[in-house]
Amino acid sequence: MLYLSNADVDALLDMKACIESFELAYRAAFEGTAVNGRRSDMITATQREDGGVYSLKMVGGIVPASGIGAVRINSDILSFPSAGGRTRKVKVPAAPGDRWVGLILLFSTVTGEPLAILPDGVLQRMRVGASSGLALRHMARGDASRLAILGSGWQAHAQAMAAAAVRPLSEIRIFSPNPDNARAFAAALEGRLNIPARAFVAPEEAVRTADIVLCATNSLQAVFQASWVEPGMHIGSIRDGEIAPEALLKAGRIIVHDPGNMGSDHLVVAKGLTHKEGSKQINSDPRLAKIAAAPSLAELVAGAASGRQSADEITCFLNFHGLGYQFAAAGAVLLDRARQAGLGHRLPSEWFTQDVHS
Amino acid sequence: MLYLSNADVDALLDMKACIESFELAYRAAFEGTAVNGRRSDMITATQREDGGVYSLKMVGGIVPASGIGAVRINSDILSFPSAGGRTRKVKVPAAPGDRWVGLILLFSTVTGEPLAILPDGVLQRMRVGASSGLALRHMARGDASRLAILGSGWQAHAQAMAAAAVRPLSEIRIFSPNPDNARAFAAALEGRLNIPARAFVAPEEAVRTADIVLCATNSLQAVFQASWVEPGMHIGSIRDGEIAPEALLKAGRIIVHDPGNMGSDHLVVAKGLTHKEGSKQINSDPRLAKIAAAPSLAELVAGAASGRQSADEITCFLNFHGLGYQFAAAGAVLLDRARQAGLGHRLPSEWFTQDVHS
Repeated sequence: MLYLSNADVDALLDMKACIESFELAYRAAFEGTAVNGRRSDMITATQREDGGVYSLKMVGGIVPASGIGAVRINSDILSFPSAGGRTRKVKVPAAPGDRWVGLILLFSTVTGEPLAILPDGVLQRMRVGASSGLALRHMARGDASRLAILGSGWQAHAQAMAAAAVRPLSEIRIFSPNPDNARAFAAALEGRLNIPARAFVAPEEAVRTADIVLCATNSLQAVFQASWVEPGMHIGSIRDGEIAPEALLKAGRIIVHDPGNMGSDHLVVAKGLTHKEGSKQINSDPRLAKIAAAPSLAELVAGAASGRQSADEITCFLNFHGLGYQFAAAGAVLLDRARQAGLGHRLPSEWFTQDVHS
Repeated sequence: MLYLSNADVDALLDMKACIESFELAYRAAFEGTAVNGRRSDMITATQREDGGVYSLKMVGGIVPASGIGAVRINSDILSFPSAGGRTRKVKVPAAPGDRWVGLILLFSTVTGEPLAILPDGVLQRMRVGASSGLALRHMARGDASRLAILGSGWQAHAQAMAAAAVRPLSEIRIFSPNPDNARAFAAALEGRLNIPARAFVAPEEAVRTADIVLCATNSLQAVFQASWVEPGMHIGSIRDGEIAPEALLKAGRIIVHDPGNMGSDHLVVAKGLTHKEGSKQINSDPRLAKIAAAPSLAELVAGAASGRQSADEITCFLNFHGLGYQFAAAGAVLLDRARQAGLGHRLPSEWFTQDVHS
């Protein structure tokens, strides 16, 4: 049983390897050999005075070909502050030392034993990036070189790394509502990727003539507008509601991460195009059928759904909700490399196994 | 962050304290403040030569009043041998040292931080026992003194402890298909509880004139038959299918652990009384409505459903499937006691928290 830190994961795992492991895992998922567990989101009141709520999330998955089952747990204090007419979901660093809590456990499918426990921060960022990268590889124009990123946080960074891993980028444009964050992010990207990166104060200027636009914000309102859509663009989003519904409807080809994870309750993306009757969400706009019928990334990767059909086509990938088998796929690569490099702390395996069973 | 062993849990937690913590948690669940996560059961092929399959299960829950969120993970190799016309589900001890794998993680609802990690063996046994004990307290006759147990394993032991915690037992009768196991179990119980305990070779003799019959086997076939039912009996089962459907239908009052966890796919209990039309399970016997409409243990504990109404009434508790908040409730007691006693290994908290978030 190995403990790995975020620094270990960062040192061991690279975006390219992550995308390659996903290519195999998504194909296996399409074939039905890799599986995804049911996601559970629990939210309760908590004994805090700041109005926060407690959130406990679980997701899991298995990639038998890699010999790994994975569970990811997030234990968060959430608050929902409003500023400038926008409501944001904020994870409060409420753990000692002003820290957050997300954990991944990796298990052997051959012996059942736990093989590793690690914080989820770096792997989580990489896996969201890697699924965007995998979709990009199958959907963006082969010569796509101008990347625009809306957002400047942790997730935005991974989106940039993923695009750079699969397309020959010549420039990166960054928009963030906070100009300092945008500038700092552009500088960091330029240093890490050796690709010119520039901050923009107006989002529509950042995305103009971009081949690829990736939204990676924590906004609960639309950050990408319909009037910004251009022929040939590939548009990605990691959060439901980031892309204005009318922009989505302009896309000739939409792929969703996993339709099974996109219940109508979650489909904020179509806000304004649906209405509720009792507890049931009713699609009042027939164009919504396009989104509801969108194939999954697994179908795209396995060739059961088509990728881009022409240079002018507008393509869109909705990268919502984690799939548990992502953590198993990337976790298998991580474990192999950790063993080879001798990284991580060993914990007594017998602590985490037992001589009884239920 | 504390590591606790099964021996620690065994030393710290007693059945009475567990039942008391459940009484509060089930009431909170009825009021909607304690919550139960969605259970996820994943099963895949595995690269083994013995025909086993890999099973990864997750369940979770939160009891905000106790300040604890809990996740339980089981990582098992399963095989399904047949012997004597019965099919059994066997968990193969495939981890190094011939061991099994089940883990519980406890989190603070106030800070989000992980507070403990422990194997699930002892707590799992106690929580199945404690929920049976809680039901028994509200359902069995107040003067019930003759206990019969069908089964002699790990779970059977906890069922006996639970019954002894809430009723003035005068004798315990044990049946197991393996007479040696039955005798050893009877001797162990007599030693631990100081109550006369006797092994039986015929199950119908063990249950005759018993006030309480608790089934705790790993049989996938019925082990308790309809002709054995007597007036005033309280009958419990921890596994779907243990009680013959016709025996169930004789009960005047049935309580199920949680109806939300009893999907028609799982309702083997009603085998022979249902049939499938496509993917839908059809109740072909109208008497099944009694089972389908049975109240939950939370409703019983909160007083929204009635317990026993007369000395002659036949009552039945179906204790299937874990509820995540059980682990949070018992976990809170466990943590308090571990801190007071100074038990457990301390692990660096900063390993399991992080300075980044997703």
